[in-house]
Amino acid sequence: MFDSALNLDLLRLDRQGFPEVVFARGKTRAQTISALKRLHDAHGHALATGVNEDLDIGGLYDPISKLYRIGQMPIRPGWPCVLSAGTSDQFIAEEAAQTLEFLGYETKRICDVGVAGLHRLLDRVDDFKTADVIIVVAGMEGALPSVVGGLVPQPIIAVPTSVGYGTSYNGIAALLGMLNSCAAGVSVMNIDNGFGAAIAAHRILQRLHS
Amino acid sequence: MFDSALNLDLLRLDRQGFPEVVFARGKTRAQTISALKRLHDAHGHALATGVNEDLDIGGLYDPISKLYRIGQMPIRPGWPCVLSAGTSDQFIAEEAAQTLEFLGYETKRICDVGVAGLHRLLDRVDDFKTADVIIVVAGMEGALPSVVGGLVPQPIIAVPTSVGYGTSYNGIAALLGMLNSCAAGVSVMNIDNGFGAAIAAHRILQRLHS
Amino acid sequence: MFDSALNLDLLRLDRQGFPEVVFARGKTRAQTISALKRLHDAHGHALATGVNEDLDIGGLYDPISKLYRIGQMPIRPGWPCVLSAGTSDQFIAEEAAQTLEFLGYETKRICDVGVAGLHRLLDRVDDFKTADVIIVVAGMEGALPSVVGGLVPQPIIAVPTSVGYGTSYNGIAALLGMLNSCAAGVSVMNIDNGFGAAIAAHRILQRLHS
Amino acid sequence: MFDSALNLDLLRLDRQGFPEVVFARGKTRAQTISALKRLHDAHGHALATGVNEDLDIGGLYDPISKLYRIGQMPIRPGWPCVLSAGTSDQFIAEEAAQTLEFLGYETKRICDVGVAGLHRLLDRVDDFKTADVIIVVAGMEGALPSVVGGLVPQPIIAVPTSVGYGTSYNGIAALLGMLNSCAAGVSVMNIDNGFGAAIAAHRILQRLHS
Amino acid sequence: MFDSALNLDLLRLDRQGFPEVVFARGKTRAQTISALKRLHDAHGHALATGVNEDLDIGGLYDPISKLYRIGQMPIRPGWPCVLSAGTSDQFIAEEAAQTLEFLGYETKRICDVGVAGLHRLLDRVDDFKTADVIIVVAGMEGALPSVVGGLVPQPIIAVPTSVGYGTSYNGIAALLGMLNSCAAGVSVMNIDNGFGAAIAAHRILQRLHS
Amino acid sequence: MFDSALNLDLLRLDRQGFPEVVFARGKTRAQTISALKRLHDAHGHALATGVNEDLDIGGLYDPISKLYRIGQMPIRPGWPCVLSAGTSDQFIAEEAAQTLEFLGYETKRICDVGVAGLHRLLDRVDDFKTADVIIVVAGMEGALPSVVGGLVPQPIIAVPTSVGYGTSYNGIAALLGMLNSCAAGVSVMNIDNGFGAAIAAHRILQRLHS
Amino acid sequence: MFDSALNLDLLRLDRQGFPEVVFARGKTRAQTISALKRLHDAHGHALATGVNEDLDIGGLYDPISKLYRIGQMPIRPGWPCVLSAGTSDQFIAEEAAQTLEFLGYETKRICDVGVAGLHRLLDRVDDFKTADVIIVVAGMEGALPSVVGGLVPQPIIAVPTSVGYGTSYNGIAALLGMLNSCAAGVSVMNIDNGFGAAIAAHRILQRLHS
Amino acid sequence: MFDSALNLDLLRLDRQGFPEVVFARGKTRAQTISALKRLHDAHGHALATGVNEDLDIGGLYDPISKLYRIGQMPIRPGWPCVLSAGTSDQFIAEEAAQTLEFLGYETKRICDVGVAGLHRLLDRVDDFKTADVIIVVAGMEGALPSVVGGLVPQPIIAVPTSVGYGTSYNGIAALLGMLNSCAAGVSVMNIDNGFGAAIAAHRILQRLHS
Repeated sequence: MFDSALNLDLLRLDRQGFPEVVFARGKTRAQTISALKRLHDAHGHALATGVNEDLDIGGLYDPISKLYRIGQMPIRPGWPCVLSAGTSDQFIAEEAAQTLEFLGYETKRICDVGVAGLHRLLDRVDDFKTADVIIVVAGMEGALPSVVGGLVPQPIIAVPTSVGYGTSYNGIAALLGMLNSCAAGVSVMNIDNGFGAAIAAHRILQRLHS
Repeated sequence: MFDSALNLDLLRLDRQGFPEVVFARGKTRAQTISALKRLHDAHGHALATGVNEDLDIGGLYDPISKLYRIGQMPIRPGWPCVLSAGTSDQFIAEEAAQTLEFLGYETKRICDVGVAGLHRLLDRVDDFKTADVIIVVAGMEGALPSVVGGLVPQPIIAVPTSVGYGTSYNGIAALLGMLNSCAAGVSVMNIDNGFGAAIAAHRILQRLHS
Repeated sequence: MFDSALNLDLLRLDRQGFPEVVFARGKTRAQTISALKRLHDAHGHALATGVNEDLDIGGLYDPISKLYRIGQMPIRPGWPCVLSAGTSDQFIAEEAAQTLEFLGYETKRICDVGVAGLHRLLDRVDDFKTADVIIVVAGMEGALPSVVGGLVPQPIIAVPTSVGYGTSYNGIAALLGMLNSCAAGVSVMNIDNGFGAAIAAHRILQRLHS
Repeated sequence: MFDSALNLDLLRLDRQGFPEVVFARGKTRAQTISALKRLHDAHGHALATGVNEDLDIGGLYDPISKLYRIGQMPIRPGWPCVLSAGTSDQFIAEEAAQTLEFLGYETKRICDVGVAGLHRLLDRVDDFKTADVIIVVAGMEGALPSVVGGLVPQPIIAVPTSVGYGTSYNGIAALLGMLNSCAAGVSVMNIDNGFGAAIAAHRILQRLHS
Repeated sequence: MFDSALNLDLLRLDRQGFPEVVFARGKTRAQTISALKRLHDAHGHALATGVNEDLDIGGLYDPISKLYRIGQMPIRPGWPCVLSAGTSDQFIAEEAAQTLEFLGYETKRICDVGVAGLHRLLDRVDDFKTADVIIVVAGMEGALPSVVGGLVPQPIIAVPTSVGYGTSYNGIAALLGMLNSCAAGVSVMNIDNGFGAAIAAHRILQRLHS
Repeated sequence: MFDSALNLDLLRLDRQGFPEVVFARGKTRAQTISALKRLHDAHGHALATGVNEDLDIGGLYDPISKLYRIGQMPIRPGWPCVLSAGTSDQFIAEEAAQTLEFLGYETKRICDVGVAGLHRLLDRVDDFKTADVIIVVAGMEGALPSVVGGLVPQPIIAVPTSVGYGTSYNGIAALLGMLNSCAAGVSVMNIDNGFGAAIAAHRILQRLHS
Repeated sequence: MFDSALNLDLLRLDRQGFPEVVFARGKTRAQTISALKRLHDAHGHALATGVNEDLDIGGLYDPISKLYRIGQMPIRPGWPCVLSAGTSDQFIAEEAAQTLEFLGYETKRICDVGVAGLHRLLDRVDDFKTADVIIVVAGMEGALPSVVGGLVPQPIIAVPTSVGYGTSYNGIAALLGMLNSCAAGVSVMNIDNGFGAAIAAHRILQRLHS
Repeated sequence: MFDSALNLDLLRLDRQGFPEVVFARGKTRAQTISALKRLHDAHGHALATGVNEDLDIGGLYDPISKLYRIGQMPIRPGWPCVLSAGTSDQFIAEEAAQTLEFLGYETKRICDVGVAGLHRLLDRVDDFKTADVIIVVAGMEGALPSVVGGLVPQPIIAVPTSVGYGTSYNGIAALLGMLNSCAAGVSVMNIDNGFGAAIAAHRILQRLHS
């Protein structure tokens, strides 16, 4: 059998400014809890993604984002903003926003600003045009990052979601839309990877405020 | 050998209000010319699409749209409008617009109104909000029909183009974007099918003005 | 957390002639009900698609089409017709037809006229050749719109369904068949998007009867 | 180096009733000629497919079908029929028809009977309803085998062609359409495989007339 | 609502020599039963495919093949043979074999003759080389039809199954293998379409024995 | 019905040095047990893969690897090593390792050495650089075989796993990564095919130690 | 005809800190030159991408990167670094690096540090660990961003290239590898989109040094 | 500009027992020659793959395999065998065989043993059943490795080629066939990767004869 002791990367926090995070899918409940406890012992905080139920080990479980958090990193400067196109995209927008909060950032959320009712987005431009970095979450055709990317000069991290049906193919349509954005300089994460978007934003923010 | 005489559908004009049109790709120059002449003899006008060179039989060849026209149908009422996202999409926008002109419609064109510079589109809304039907041509992520479809109540016919590179996959990204449009009621044509979009518009226009 | 108040587009009815409709998939029951109530308060009617159970808030639930309706828009002129190839396609044909009824149109349905028994379709041509617009719903190889599109001059809106198995790939075969229709001017919706087809028809009908 | 002498399967004619045929793509002109000569020496006739130029070794080259024939097998009973949807599909229809002629069958051809002008097909039903086996060749959405397969009881061998553009994907749309035919019992060949269809027909015909 | 009375094709038996068969997937139990009863009333026998449970209306349900049969057509001449590569392919092999039995044919089955143990196939050649038509059912890489098609001269109908894992992609690997068979003249059905293979065989057999 | 007696390949052990192994997916519990018993009777040991529950026939069931073993082959020389990138890949790494143990090899396991924390891998190079053959198991982007393949001269058998989400597409990303490895001479198995990797290693090992 | 005057977005420089750039593919030489001249007139500098030949209008043409530059923006602070895996990836690495130079940044290049010879990368870590942002360019399996992303804390922008053959599918393997990177927070551009990566880096750099 | 001096991995020969090999596609003639000369200076031999023309620097160019060799490694023990299915696969079979010869191995070739004429393969079993390792090269459906893998116990390295047409998709059909081989323990290389197969064989052979 493989060692029951997981081979955690406890040096990641020092090396990269963020700790190893437990990816719970494909792990047993026991493996997830064991990893969280060892990370919490080492760092004083721990995070798991893709958690399907409350782990009951003294942390906080959020069923929308599927995050389990024990403690968090100290509050730090930096103003990330998370935009989302529709209510159905909220599960990923929250994964990004709450990961940023775990990392210590105060995080603004602007939701339901999809391009089919453009006035909703245009009414909110002032709210996000002062952010340090903007995470844009959208499913279906994933057009929101193109429009946002054309309006403002900041870093844009686009996250396609698996929201949609038929030829959305669980996010392929949105992913391709974002990779082919006519707005230059939009970078893209994997489908439903709100966590990764938060870390990408963190890589920028910690450089900005170091 | 197959009969040299092509089996043309000369009844289509009566049955559907538009004649058979010669699809030149995969046909020899001689086959294309023969078909055009027989259609012209029957109807007094003829159109071929996908023509790669001037056929020199007394008609008009346009190298952008790859259309070859002999005569045209009588002018008729109806106000179609063709929007296109970028200069590179012009070859398909022209295929649609010139087919509509062949069918007898005065056709408005509005180009270079891609969503990365939203003000360009918003400045032109008054120009297309009185059209009977709007054909929207876009490559790359194909977001323009979503934005237009959310602004106006008219019929929207979206045409993805093969413009782009990498994961645009010769129009798949734009096609999927349009099929998954968050603006309701946008219908979609095959990639680069400007001709088909014109016929779809014509089906609407002849119902509207009959 | 995101605002509990959804950012509904209440201006859509004035702007486009149809209200925002609640897309229930990916929303909680509470979110769906809340959105329906606010739309009903604003407009006096409300519609949700993709609803998996009766919401018990005084409206009408149809388990075939997965629509939940509270009231409807006033009866208006216009003769849409919905054709479907097989009994298995009924769930989408009904989504289209009942959405049209919600929008105020009297809607004709013709079902089980797939091309494998061509006489069934040919026997019904008189029933649909006077319609204003024809929605054609088909799964498997999706050949019905090609045949219908070659028989009549009206606007044809094709809807591929996910009906089939093996290489139907949940509607890809039908979608590709419709996008590549040899009948010119057939426009296409996303797979299983009966709702969108109804709105596309409505865009035409309200132009026709305004 | 590999042996210059190709390892031909000279026993195939006895074992299966048809000889090995040279697949010229990917072979040098010299390899193709060498193989043809050895087959001709062994059998008194030889056939190559996918030949791009006249080989000038005393046989017959047809630039439409890309076949090169030296002699042919003796005339034999059997009535295959080859239907094709459009003029652009002729190159594959001829590959099938001329292979059947090489095998010794008198072969009927019916072309330009695509489903967008249904009357053209219905006018010819009497011409193919007495055939022993029907090969149906079509590109674009590939709907013709479904309609034919629903009209007659004979064996139907469907051949998708790479004719089309955009989402036809060089024959995928037609292939999927044929594999998902709502007409039961239609069997399908590889894209552009007119040769294979002829051999499939021959397997049936030699059983029928042995 | 659509008519509760299904629009069955009761003329198919006369036109094609086989009756309409009920495709139960996507139909309610009530719809399936209603269709079976009307077909039984008209013809004296009825068949449904893709049935997930015993319908308890006096017929025979087979959980392996998912067929429900009421009666069958009269015994007729013709010797079809069904080969299958592995035990896991049995569900499709039985769908083909039992459909043939419903149509009136005595049907031979040879199973577990996959190419990884070639001697198992070679030991059985004498058993299938006298058949009128051979249906070859295989999943995974789908190599069996290539080997069989190279050994015998008869009509070969290949059926890919969804058996496999990983890159078998529910039968794509087998389908592509069969479409690209290096044995000439192998025709192919949709993935898991044992029923269609039986009808394709029947089209040949009724021609052979008429 | 097909014969209830499965057509097992009992000669495989002599012919190839490993016995037929029961692939339980798609087989009934009874079929799996019957096959195991017959193999055990013939050889004195038997193995099944893809088993979802304990079969309770006196063997050993491991729920991680989904293997069911009765006995094993005699211990033999040879030092295979199984590396895995993440904890989530353990189910396939164990399928490979335990199959090797069934075949008689003492097998080393090194886990959680994914490339995102490179030091974990570099710290273990001494542990695997003396192995005879190295099986490398990884999901997500599947980069581990490239790095390992560049560090050591031994045979490398790469196994992509279905671990990941979004565009990992159940292992396609990892499979493509491994097939396109910039480290030369890495050969690849099907997604999640730990069993096959063990047999591929065994083909090498028995040649090495014969 | 469409207006000969292109509808350029001359406000982009003020709005976003970078000017509109001419995408030359799909444009005629005359259209590209006209757009460059108008941008140069407005801003004093202009850039075109995807240029296949020297335009001979007084600027600088680089055949590797396919960039055409007239002038450049003023030198500004910021230290971007471009890493590339192989010599064949140089065309995209240069597109990124030279775009950054056009925008005013001094840009470090580190090439041929692919993961198959890990020591080459590890020897250079000190050279890139002080950069503000790192663009990582790789083809084939695209593993380099995962390894780099695990070594350093900075923003990582990954660019897949179309370099490779067979199943690299012109960059899909690399794209999927990067989207599924096990190193958290790696964001990804379209295949071969070195230009976009430079703009994404610029969005970060101008925020960092404003 | 990137350094003109390529960053070659000169330590690979010591580390792995084979030198860095120049992948000429995507490199200029000058880059390829420069790399070959530096490798030759360091090792006394050098190899490039994918070379489209004679480089005229004193080595040997083979237009079939597209290899350019200067010298070779010393003759060493080991008996690799290369089987190929068809004449069209020879270009890849030669890439594998000649790479093995460059590495110092005497290499047996057996060609034109595709499964459509099984006797050709069975007649040659004695010729390859004593090899140390067998490389099996096949296009189209790629069935040959399954049959060979079921006949013999040795390591089998399967190489799909891009030979075929239509749904062979330049080798996908063959690749999927090989990955899903019903013969256990067949490992697979990228499409057309004869070079990689030779290195994979070499990894086994140098372990066997060290």
